[in-house]
Amino acid sequence: MRKGRKARQADDAPKRKTDYRNLKNPFPLMKAFSDDHIAKMHEAALDTLENLGVKVLLPAARETFRQGGAKVDESTEMVYIGRDIVQAALASAPKSIPVAGGARDRDIVLELGNLCFQPGAGAPHATDRIKGRRPGTWSDYQDLTRLTQHFDVLHMVPPLIEPQDIPIHLRHYATMEAQMTLTDKVPFVFSRGTPQVEQSFEMLRDFRGLSDAEFHAGAQCYTIINTNSPRTIDIPMAQGLIDFAKAGQVSIVTPFTLMGAMAPITVAGAITLSHTEALAAITLTQLTKSGAPVCYGTFTSNVDMKSGAPVFGTPEHFRASLAAGQLARLIGLPWRSASGSAANSNDVQAANETQFGTWGCLMAGATVIIHAAGWLEGGLTVSYEKLITDMEVLQMVAELCAAGETAGADLGLDAIADVQPSGHFFGTPHTMERYQTEFYEPLVADYSNYGTWQERGAIDANTRATGVWQDILARPNPVKSDGQAVGDLKDYIAKATKAGGAAPVS
Amino acid sequence: MRKGRKARQADDAPKRKTDYRNLKNPFPLMKAFSDDHIAKMHEAALDTLENLGVKVLLPAARETFRQGGAKVDESTEMVYIGRDIVQAALASAPKSIPVAGGARDRDIVLELGNLCFQPGAGAPHATDRIKGRRPGTWSDYQDLTRLTQHFDVLHMVPPLIEPQDIPIHLRHYATMEAQMTLTDKVPFVFSRGTPQVEQSFEMLRDFRGLSDAEFHAGAQCYTIINTNSPRTIDIPMAQGLIDFAKAGQVSIVTPFTLMGAMAPITVAGAITLSHTEALAAITLTQLTKSGAPVCYGTFTSNVDMKSGAPVFGTPEHFRASLAAGQLARLIGLPWRSASGSAANSNDVQAANETQFGTWGCLMAGATVIIHAAGWLEGGLTVSYEKLITDMEVLQMVAELCAAGETAGADLGLDAIADVQPSGHFFGTPHTMERYQTEFYEPLVADYSNYGTWQERGAIDANTRATGVWQDILARPNPVKSDGQAVGDLKDYIAKATKAGGAAPVS
Repeated sequence: MRKGRKARQADDAPKRKTDYRNLKNPFPLMKAFSDDHIAKMHEAALDTLENLGVKVLLPAARETFRQGGAKVDESTEMVYIGRDIVQAALASAPKSIPVAGGARDRDIVLELGNLCFQPGAGAPHATDRIKGRRPGTWSDYQDLTRLTQHFDVLHMVPPLIEPQDIPIHLRHYATMEAQMTLTDKVPFVFSRGTPQVEQSFEMLRDFRGLSDAEFHAGAQCYTIINTNSPRTIDIPMAQGLIDFAKAGQVSIVTPFTLMGAMAPITVAGAITLSHTEALAAITLTQLTKSGAPVCYGTFTSNVDMKSGAPVFGTPEHFRASLAAGQLARLIGLPWRSASGSAANSNDVQAANETQFGTWGCLMAGATVIIHAAGWLEGGLTVSYEKLITDMEVLQMVAELCAAGETAGADLGLDAIADVQPSGHFFGTPHTMERYQTEFYEPLVADYSNYGTWQERGAIDANTRATGVWQDILARPNPVKSDGQAVGDLKDYIAKATKAGGAAPVS
Repeated sequence: MRKGRKARQADDAPKRKTDYRNLKNPFPLMKAFSDDHIAKMHEAALDTLENLGVKVLLPAARETFRQGGAKVDESTEMVYIGRDIVQAALASAPKSIPVAGGARDRDIVLELGNLCFQPGAGAPHATDRIKGRRPGTWSDYQDLTRLTQHFDVLHMVPPLIEPQDIPIHLRHYATMEAQMTLTDKVPFVFSRGTPQVEQSFEMLRDFRGLSDAEFHAGAQCYTIINTNSPRTIDIPMAQGLIDFAKAGQVSIVTPFTLMGAMAPITVAGAITLSHTEALAAITLTQLTKSGAPVCYGTFTSNVDMKSGAPVFGTPEHFRASLAAGQLARLIGLPWRSASGSAANSNDVQAANETQFGTWGCLMAGATVIIHAAGWLEGGLTVSYEKLITDMEVLQMVAELCAAGETAGADLGLDAIADVQPSGHFFGTPHTMERYQTEFYEPLVADYSNYGTWQERGAIDANTRATGVWQDILARPNPVKSDGQAVGDLKDYIAKATKAGGAAPVS
């Protein structure tokens, strides 16, 4: 691009600084139901745990429940948890959870009022405009982790896709290495049985140069625990809750309760079931280790009753988030919610669903919002382009978080007095002092007029997004790692691989 | 489509009913600035009116201000309005304005807390996937008015596009006829000088079978008044304020203040200027006729400082809406805000900007949200497809408005008790009773899985939207008009056309 007078001026002008880390949620909270109705839902969950019980497939978990005072029927694997046990667990679960990233300026605190975003997680497929839709690969995993690192508005790293070209007994070595060397944000550890979890903890502990005691003393990573709705906690999930609690690491408990499918068709019914299951899982963490860090969570949306397919960003999904937020505040725990989209491509439907779902989470006061960027097909695919176009929305939301009441507060009275009727403000000192810094700078939005846009090839936002992610991935890895630590990690992985890896447990 | 057992069952099942009329805004209101800062902005506006003044180009309007006690300098056309005059005007302006549609169930009430949507308005161009982008025509005007009629979530009819193939001295005949015969929603009258306005009032009065006194006794239509920022009220706008006030019809006062261009670059500065101009216009209506119906309004967004082009759905636009909402509540008047998009096609950018801007308006408590569907290129084009895809968002918002606390409130405790661990809820009576009615039915979203979607041609939402509007326009006009009234209207128009029409005044 030519540099005219304006561009040269621009080089001298103050550059815009943004700070999208450590966001507070500035949005007023909305209720789906009255406080009384929410109290009824909480009571119904306590009743359900006490009288109907939950099925717990892991014997050690049933034993923990039994020792904690719950009634256990070994023949049916059902556990009946008295409300006093649940209430004690809610009292001991910490309300504020500091979690360390790979660098101090990436540390986060999970507590009500704070706001963290994550891109879409757990997809078997990846897609982009260049290579099309394919099973997720190790290359995708690394690229998507690097894109997550790039955007300050993403605060935690999820497993965006499954790197299916790496055997599952070795996969955690690869994903942990990527999460330590390609990003310094809070990393994710899959709960696929104790052997993988323990090795993941070891790799992270050693890479960060911590003693065992130091590692256990504060959270360094997190996992997501999905119950099997209705009312079942399976073996790897129960084991994950126990392993993470013992190690002082964060479990984010997230029943995936689809209204009309694995949960009642009504918002209140589905959220009551979700709440029931979340309370059971939270209780297991506290019975394992009182004070263990655990987040409440929900992922409740509806299904398309014609096909049974899960859908996201619907009014029902929005209201489910609101109701879950009310319950989270009732019990006082930090909590995660989720956005998402059922669309099959990064089109207008996809954009509208993800943004709609995100506003539901924001007005529900979620601490962590997952699947906020890139998620398509109800989670079967993460799109590189959608990651970019959703990032625009998250950055604009972050501008509203960061602004507080000071940004744009200047009344400009001198400018108003100076500019006469039918004049303009382009050249006033008030404007010139601020024109480089006052407004959000878009990531992918194109503000050129129709003629210019046509001349440049009439390129839509989805297509432009390709250039954005390609540009980011073309840059060097910005994360500086300690060479010795990286070497030690590679040695560890080589040795463990030679020893046969660690198979998942289910 | 084949009708299987499920489909036959479906025919017998209760159908879902929606009611998107007479919406209340259920969203909690957000502030951009502290109440103190908002009070300062209001004081600054009053100071500006008193000491810096506004330029009023219409002599009759200056005379009205003079008679109302304002200081007028005829040599500069500047009017200096004392704060007592403004405060008296704010006291006499009605806080609740009933406006009649063409049918009683289309009547609306403009007051704080109520919520009305309008599609995009005032575009010179129309675009759709079949005919492409072109100057707006009479055919487009009729089609877009019919689409506006179709969706209950749109409550008022704006002039979506300019029918440029009709000469401007005859255009109001065509647009009024379309607004009376193709829709029964609240119609719009352009303020293009007294002759056109008076003829439009006559046509509407006679078509609705009202006496002159009946017409004047209650609002039957509305106009939009854009001041010429900074601080100028031009001839047709001033004349419109006077004509509408005299006739008891609604003026919606909307300074179009672009931060950094025709207004200070800061949100507070731009909104202070907008507020100043709105107060001047509101005062003119009340000096013309105390108690005349007038809405406060703002359309404040930023410009792209690289090109000077207006942009919409930005964080600054969002915060400007919030600030305007605070000022509207301070003066207690119903008010309009606006969404919109600067995108050049109905792409992901367009979707995200319009939805982002709409959430700003909703959390700002706007009574009327304009440009909420179909608006592209910062208002230069209305897209048929975008009208449809934005409608999905507005309908989902309306679901949240309509739901209140009763929808989805059933806890489904019997269903929870009935369904055993690892069972599902698809077949429970609780689900079967509700599966046809519990969830929002999408307009254009496709919930099929990726394989099915591929088989069906991998059609994106924008493309699907074409079929939606084509289907609506293929149906007969649902508005039943009185044959005699239509005949009389046609006679009136024929006679007025023969007499030379009515040229706009500027």
